[in-house]
Amino acid sequence: MASFSDLLKTRRSIRDYEDKQIGIELVKEIIAESCLAPNSSNGQPWRFIIVNNKPMMATLSEDSKKNLLSDLEKNPNSPIKNYEGALRNPGFNVFYNAPCLVFIGGSKKIRSLSVDCALAASYFMLLAAEKGLGTCWVGLGSNIKDPELLSSLGMTEEYQIVAPIIIGYPKNIPEIPERAAPQILEVIS
Amino acid sequence: MASFSDLLKTRRSIRDYEDKQIGIELVKEIIAESCLAPNSSNGQPWRFIIVNNKPMMATLSEDSKKNLLSDLEKNPNSPIKNYEGALRNPGFNVFYNAPCLVFIGGSKKIRSLSVDCALAASYFMLLAAEKGLGTCWVGLGSNIKDPELLSSLGMTEEYQIVAPIIIGYPKNIPEIPERAAPQILEVIS
Repeated sequence: MASFSDLLKTRRSIRDYEDKQIGIELVKEIIAESCLAPNSSNGQPWRFIIVNNKPMMATLSEDSKKNLLSDLEKNPNSPIKNYEGALRNPGFNVFYNAPCLVFIGGSKKIRSLSVDCALAASYFMLLAAEKGLGTCWVGLGSNIKDPELLSSLGMTEEYQIVAPIIIGYPKNIPEIPERAAPQILEVIS
Repeated sequence: MASFSDLLKTRRSIRDYEDKQIGIELVKEIIAESCLAPNSSNGQPWRFIIVNNKPMMATLSEDSKKNLLSDLEKNPNSPIKNYEGALRNPGFNVFYNAPCLVFIGGSKKIRSLSVDCALAASYFMLLAAEKGLGTCWVGLGSNIKDPELLSSLGMTEEYQIVAPIIIGYPKNIPEIPERAAPQILEVIS
């Protein structure tokens, strides 16, 4: 078992994967341990969807790209502008060549949904790294709107995707990107 | 160094602390490592405020309680209703008896601010546990509105507090609260 300090320094966002399937039971094990994350009032609002199927991931990618471009037309100054080139490239899959995708989300009615799901996502990504797997939180993959697709994911209108996370065996592990020095606004002592 | 699996199982939300100060340098070290968290487009929007001063923490608690009760009057069905008794108790400090408080937040203009700060907060809480410290994300402590208080925290109108986290040496470590079985809505394989 790696020490936590080592794990923090070796976990990277992975966008290049081996062509190797990942076992569903391993993904479920990581999900179960992710539920140990702290969360608001112990509400545990997180729900999970496992997509261990590349053709389905490609379909989800196409729907998300289409909806992001449609949003960009309505709001041309959106930060999505930075990704317009990739989104217009028919060969670009927002989930890269990962073999598996896990959506973490839950009911829109829960005020703390985003932060609770982000806390579980953080655990998920670290647990995966500990087991030699790579992950990447792919924000561009959350914009699924097609009713049939949502239904096939088990999502009702009440649900919202917070964290689309790809997972698989890493092929290339990039260097750690530069971190700014921590910005501490004030110290009151 | 603890293994990550052990760390996950021993980290608890701590609300009872030893009457012992925590060194600012130790808090800064935890903050620096928290900045290794994944974040949207490597924007690193997180900003930190350290309040290592109990009288100031009591003042912040009073302002947050007052503003939460005022919000509750406007919206009587708010989930804050569950905390009304505590908020009306003059002896209740939302930061408990912790010696130190760290706010994690940033600019409201950043769309991913909540999830980015939650990811850093997750690292912060795990790093603290690894060093034998206790933490608790205290949602009730984020509602600071007094302009003078905000100014003394180094916060301009652009800033928003996402995660108020208390930190100190734990006195009592509670049992792990029950976790529901993971709710997996769908498995597509």
